[in-house]
Amino acid sequence: MRLVSIDMDDFSFTIQKKGEGLARAGTIHTPHGDIQTPAFVTVGTKATVKALSPEQVKDMGSQVVLANTYHLYLEPGDELVKKGGGLHRFMNWNGPTMTDSGGFQVFSLGAAFGKGVTKFASTTEVEFSVEVDLDMQSKSILPLAKIDEEGVDFRSHIDGSAHRLTPEKSLQIQHNIGADIIFAFDECTSPQAPYEYQKEALDRTHRWAKRSLDEHKRLGGPQALFGIVQGGKHEDLRKESARQIGSMDFDGFGIGGSFTKEDIGTAVRWVNELLPEDKPRHLLGIGEPRDLFLGVESGCDTFDCVAPTRIGRNGALYTKEGRINILNARYAEDFSPLDQDCECYACKNYTRAYVAHLFRVKEMFAGTLASIHNLYFLTKLVSDMRKALIEDNFSEYKADFLKKYYKVDTASNV
Amino acid sequence: MRLVSIDMDDFSFTIQKKGEGLARAGTIHTPHGDIQTPAFVTVGTKATVKALSPEQVKDMGSQVVLANTYHLYLEPGDELVKKGGGLHRFMNWNGPTMTDSGGFQVFSLGAAFGKGVTKFASTTEVEFSVEVDLDMQSKSILPLAKIDEEGVDFRSHIDGSAHRLTPEKSLQIQHNIGADIIFAFDECTSPQAPYEYQKEALDRTHRWAKRSLDEHKRLGGPQALFGIVQGGKHEDLRKESARQIGSMDFDGFGIGGSFTKEDIGTAVRWVNELLPEDKPRHLLGIGEPRDLFLGVESGCDTFDCVAPTRIGRNGALYTKEGRINILNARYAEDFSPLDQDCECYACKNYTRAYVAHLFRVKEMFAGTLASIHNLYFLTKLVSDMRKALIEDNFSEYKADFLKKYYKVDTASNV
Repeated sequence: MRLVSIDMDDFSFTIQKKGEGLARAGTIHTPHGDIQTPAFVTVGTKATVKALSPEQVKDMGSQVVLANTYHLYLEPGDELVKKGGGLHRFMNWNGPTMTDSGGFQVFSLGAAFGKGVTKFASTTEVEFSVEVDLDMQSKSILPLAKIDEEGVDFRSHIDGSAHRLTPEKSLQIQHNIGADIIFAFDECTSPQAPYEYQKEALDRTHRWAKRSLDEHKRLGGPQALFGIVQGGKHEDLRKESARQIGSMDFDGFGIGGSFTKEDIGTAVRWVNELLPEDKPRHLLGIGEPRDLFLGVESGCDTFDCVAPTRIGRNGALYTKEGRINILNARYAEDFSPLDQDCECYACKNYTRAYVAHLFRVKEMFAGTLASIHNLYFLTKLVSDMRKALIEDNFSEYKADFLKKYYKVDTASNV
Repeated sequence: MRLVSIDMDDFSFTIQKKGEGLARAGTIHTPHGDIQTPAFVTVGTKATVKALSPEQVKDMGSQVVLANTYHLYLEPGDELVKKGGGLHRFMNWNGPTMTDSGGFQVFSLGAAFGKGVTKFASTTEVEFSVEVDLDMQSKSILPLAKIDEEGVDFRSHIDGSAHRLTPEKSLQIQHNIGADIIFAFDECTSPQAPYEYQKEALDRTHRWAKRSLDEHKRLGGPQALFGIVQGGKHEDLRKESARQIGSMDFDGFGIGGSFTKEDIGTAVRWVNELLPEDKPRHLLGIGEPRDLFLGVESGCDTFDCVAPTRIGRNGALYTKEGRINILNARYAEDFSPLDQDCECYACKNYTRAYVAHLFRVKEMFAGTLASIHNLYFLTKLVSDMRKALIEDNFSEYKADFLKKYYKVDTASNV
């Protein structure tokens, strides 16, 4: 029995059960509560989960919210978040939180100012809508983000103003924001970049990891710092990165980069076979159901992705029989729930016809209901994977889900 | 103790206390619960209160939601709402509901297709943003709405499609939608229309009132029908309308038209001095705090207005010291609540700095928090008027509120 509700200097990870492949069910303890893993992390980019109140996020089943360092640094500024009592108090979310390092956005959003938007995310659920061939050697393509040994000069995607991020600055920002779990500053390279460049960037990311750790220790406090493993799809680079980052005194690890379905079964596995088993592993930016199964089997504990809310706001909804678009004419007079037997708030209280109506007349509550449903769906999917791991029936659960969802025999080809 | 939770054939109005002028505190009983009056009605135009869940509407203190017949007739269609179980079930709001007659929108939104948007609402809190001089005698200005003795031909403001509303059709639509309180079909004339036209339109509105009542009886069911009094700012027309409509077998009354501050103290009073005292009176489209006090003193029991949510979505917030715009630079680092000592969800859990941030980065939750606060403010304002009436201190409450809100000595000039 604890005397205080918030245990400010306590971060731990315990494994309850090991399962298929590298899969495990565990518990991450943070100063703001526990995360039962595997777990899907809700993205709240700008210190708000789009279209939802924190109560709706909690009721939907979310255990943890991830905000974006890059966005909060630019607006409203990390100093302001700190003055407002830190992320939890500022946004009224009292559960566990994470911030990413800002690296991904600096190299995609920041760099892309005035040039369209770059994507580094999963193949099927994209973080941004336009893909740009990001040749890091061609200066003409990337005039706005300039990397040197110390850090990165970039311009804001909002107003073009000049900024500089270094490992130290990223950590200072993340300490101001005050999330429970924060990440080391890394360079997220394009999968199209040549091997030589990826090797060079990886070595720098390792040096930045050490500097992130040093700055984190200098700043002090209860936050847990995760190091980020990079290395693209190259086995030697991924393994080298896992060994290097894994040997440092991080509280856990993030696995970054661009992943195709194949990469998750290979690159992620190479990494997790080498990372210390007793620390949690976060797979950055992955949210397609099939990828989540592969991620869990490959030894990842947590996942975040904007897909459920982003596609939801466009009317795309997950169902156990695959994705549907609620604006399809067939749902206009369909008075069944969004997904049969779903226990989410949207499905218990509204019909497909009502949600389709809200989308057609462009009412904000459409985005709220679709986001609640999609977040509930993925959060429960990963939570059910945990349950299956504990009950020793992960393979059956996976085969059953994938067969219905993708309408294919998944025993062999997933 | 009732055996069923919904008493389907019960509508009544009781007066608990009479106060200043024509003011009274009462209770409207409907099949979906009671409305303690005076009461501010929450507008849910398209079967949703913009940016809010029904739970947020209820938590904010709302007793009753008003949806718009014109909008629901066009999208998704009243037949669809009926198939979906009626308005309450369709939108998941189990409290009392109202629908207006569609008349106001037919003559403003419908008529204005392709020509800008017309306003017939209150002077300070406008229903629509562009005002058009609506000369009913000039055919060239209104080619899209054509009135005859039977009804109105108009075009949808959405797609220009042709439609016809008659008193019978309006009642059929409102019976399909299924709100607890519905309104007779009326012609809402422009205050700029000449006296002769207003007289002609008023006589037609009285004939339409009779036809609305006949159709309502023919259709049967538990809904309460309110007749609408028109007559512009002309004392003889207003009094004639109050006598005519007041003599018909309606369950209550709506007072329609365009009101300036002066009209509420005069036109509304002329009407309510003549309407039967034992039936409830709804003042349509009024929401400015000063007007609400005048409305209550002039004998009105309920009020609806889109202002609190509409201005809220633009960052305008009510406070006890008057309206503020949260995007003003002075609030960027203001960590106090939106309004000091306010007990609404937004004020209890968030700061001005946070809400300003949400508006700046265009997050949907900004509109949610601003709407909750503004609706709470007006709902509580009218609820506190009721309390003051019951406790015999309405004048003191009014003087105190208006002095702070408008920062003027209001004893003489309001």
